[in-house]
Amino acid sequence: MPTDFATGLRCRVCGKLYPKGPTNFCTDDFGPLEVDYDYDAIRANISRDKIARRPKSMWRYGELLPVAGVPSVGPQVGGTPLIRADRLADALGVERLWIKNDAVNFPTLSFKDRVVSVALSKAREFGMRTVGCASTGNLANSVAAQAAQAGLETFILVPADLERAKIFGTAVYGAKVIGCTGTYDEVNRLCTQIALKYGWGFVNVNLRPFYAEGSKTMGYEIAEDLGWRFPQHVVCPMAGGALIGKIHKAFTELTRVGLVDQPVTTKMWGAQAAGCNPISDCVKSGRERHKPVRKPTTICKSLAIGDPADGYFAAKLMRDTGGWAEDVTDEEIVDGMLLLARTEGVFAETAGGTTVSVLRKLLEQGRIPRNEEIVICITGNGLKTQDAVFEAIEEPAVIKPTLAEFEALSGSLTAEPVLA
Amino acid sequence: MPTDFATGLRCRVCGKLYPKGPTNFCTDDFGPLEVDYDYDAIRANISRDKIARRPKSMWRYGELLPVAGVPSVGPQVGGTPLIRADRLADALGVERLWIKNDAVNFPTLSFKDRVVSVALSKAREFGMRTVGCASTGNLANSVAAQAAQAGLETFILVPADLERAKIFGTAVYGAKVIGCTGTYDEVNRLCTQIALKYGWGFVNVNLRPFYAEGSKTMGYEIAEDLGWRFPQHVVCPMAGGALIGKIHKAFTELTRVGLVDQPVTTKMWGAQAAGCNPISDCVKSGRERHKPVRKPTTICKSLAIGDPADGYFAAKLMRDTGGWAEDVTDEEIVDGMLLLARTEGVFAETAGGTTVSVLRKLLEQGRIPRNEEIVICITGNGLKTQDAVFEAIEEPAVIKPTLAEFEALSGSLTAEPVLA
Repeated sequence: MPTDFATGLRCRVCGKLYPKGPTNFCTDDFGPLEVDYDYDAIRANISRDKIARRPKSMWRYGELLPVAGVPSVGPQVGGTPLIRADRLADALGVERLWIKNDAVNFPTLSFKDRVVSVALSKAREFGMRTVGCASTGNLANSVAAQAAQAGLETFILVPADLERAKIFGTAVYGAKVIGCTGTYDEVNRLCTQIALKYGWGFVNVNLRPFYAEGSKTMGYEIAEDLGWRFPQHVVCPMAGGALIGKIHKAFTELTRVGLVDQPVTTKMWGAQAAGCNPISDCVKSGRERHKPVRKPTTICKSLAIGDPADGYFAAKLMRDTGGWAEDVTDEEIVDGMLLLARTEGVFAETAGGTTVSVLRKLLEQGRIPRNEEIVICITGNGLKTQDAVFEAIEEPAVIKPTLAEFEALSGSLTAEPVLA
Repeated sequence: MPTDFATGLRCRVCGKLYPKGPTNFCTDDFGPLEVDYDYDAIRANISRDKIARRPKSMWRYGELLPVAGVPSVGPQVGGTPLIRADRLADALGVERLWIKNDAVNFPTLSFKDRVVSVALSKAREFGMRTVGCASTGNLANSVAAQAAQAGLETFILVPADLERAKIFGTAVYGAKVIGCTGTYDEVNRLCTQIALKYGWGFVNVNLRPFYAEGSKTMGYEIAEDLGWRFPQHVVCPMAGGALIGKIHKAFTELTRVGLVDQPVTTKMWGAQAAGCNPISDCVKSGRERHKPVRKPTTICKSLAIGDPADGYFAAKLMRDTGGWAEDVTDEEIVDGMLLLARTEGVFAETAGGTTVSVLRKLLEQGRIPRNEEIVICITGNGLKTQDAVFEAIEEPAVIKPTLAEFEALSGSLTAEPVLA
């Protein structure tokens, strides 16, 4: 199994290097920390053959992740399908389209399983026995499930007014779920205080630098499944704005360590909901930094982060690579979910509908050429956001179980018999 | 890609061989038909190395499936994790326990994706353009999703009084859902009539022999992931009773074609709900044939088939291998779901809770020795049957986002700080 080639945590603002520990910001300038690697050593130690012989999980790229040896949490996460989406391509009028489908990720059906398995593996390495996060959705599900499997105690902080149905998919794993009054910022500050005082691991606070690296594996898998090459376009949903950057970082690293013999020319495109679009608004308005959205109003809760931590980096990346961002209405989000389900049999959560409809919009605007190769990232499962499309589904007709009644009904619905 | 080594369809009663077509019963004695293979040719053509070089999906065992070349539907189905379940093992007091986790199967999160991909690949081979099934649950989800991806028209017949929420996960894929009054038998007869008259493919009617073969891949994957060997015990949920038989058939075939150098001595154990237990009752009462259950009453809808088609074969198999069957109450089913989620981070549907609690019962009865190796089959995802456990989850406590309030609450919940 792979060695840990991470050399430390580097400040993304001033470049100062810190030791690998449970910390997430530079004490000089409060810049965010990112894992730094010895890429020359990785280049000397990694090969396509080595990777091909390992199990099909996100950990087959272990040299490029900040964990030594066999990960202690989530060894089977990742390895999700990259699907050639010819029927969706036809519907959208493009030639070559792929879906990276994390709606079937193990164990909790979202890309968050990738980041959480890295964060919790590090938590155990640091000797932590209690972990947590502040989240209402996919992140909470994944922390609760993987912590349960690892035998870690778990605290999940959620807004006080969150419906019980949303808490369910987290509480079922035995996590201690605590409702908090106050704003998102206040709850995050509480997480930081708890993490500092007790030495607990909050996956997106003091474990954040490690956590964020897990997202890169979506990029590695896309490139490997395309035959160790990059697509011309990647369309990615944006909440905090980290995923889009990590996929691009993954491509850059693959070139740097010699696994792909091709410069990275992929254009990165970001998708948001119109009801919470700080990053796409930033790109479209030409501002360098985003304006926070005070009151998100969209059915796409999983992308509704009003003040995204990586908004600046995401906007810069899209501009630098020649991509762009767009946002779509709730109605377009539902349309996107149904189009994806009905052409490709993939039932994605609202973020997936957002991504499909943003792609359609970018095609209509002529920003993405219809004859180039596109990958869209589906990051979560539609069973988690059923309410959003429930009204769009009709009541079925009812018949007696006779051929005559069936034919009377289906005649209005279907074409001629194909074999008689 | 693999050749099709299926030689025809053989009657399980009289042994008569029929050509490979869309038919499911012997015209002489109405016995069920099963796919027959040229095992000698398979033995000469298959090897562990060949399989290892193929993608990690159920189709890597293509020589043992009745489809030639690349399957046209569901090429990425299967390859789900086999998880070493040490924490659940500790809770149950056993030494070596594994979970075969089809709750994360692609695309619709149940083992039905396996059978449907075989059935619909054959439907396309037979030139069918319309497919369907009678189902209320996992099967309907999978037919609708995979048919959408394949561009096939789909009819799904459901009971007239089924709640809209249950129809949702099928209708979202664009399937034509039709409510039928009448009994299960009447609806199945209608499916047969439609299939005969229009030449449509009903996956569990005229495509049933092919469909059923897909289940074998769960067995192949278990054996391969254990290092090409068999466990001593497999515990499997039973609805129609086919899956348990197909897993055992898979093991037998692996020995026959030389992929496993070990006789099959695995004991097969079946799990049902007490509210619909025709097969387990048959085994426990010593009857040769099951007594149909007229009115199933259990939260475990996916196993509630009162008159299981393969009941006779399943009961005989359990007796012949030295296994047994048990059934558990709704309360035990919920306990099983929570135990599985809280020890292994796997949120299974009610059938999974049934399987876990039946294993516990069989251990308590001393039927399965605690020091032998056990695999349990998890066949579907808990997000589909949330109602069943909803009441077992408590409302969270609510605090202001301050360290003082957090400590006051968590002090009652947690142990000492681990790092201070």
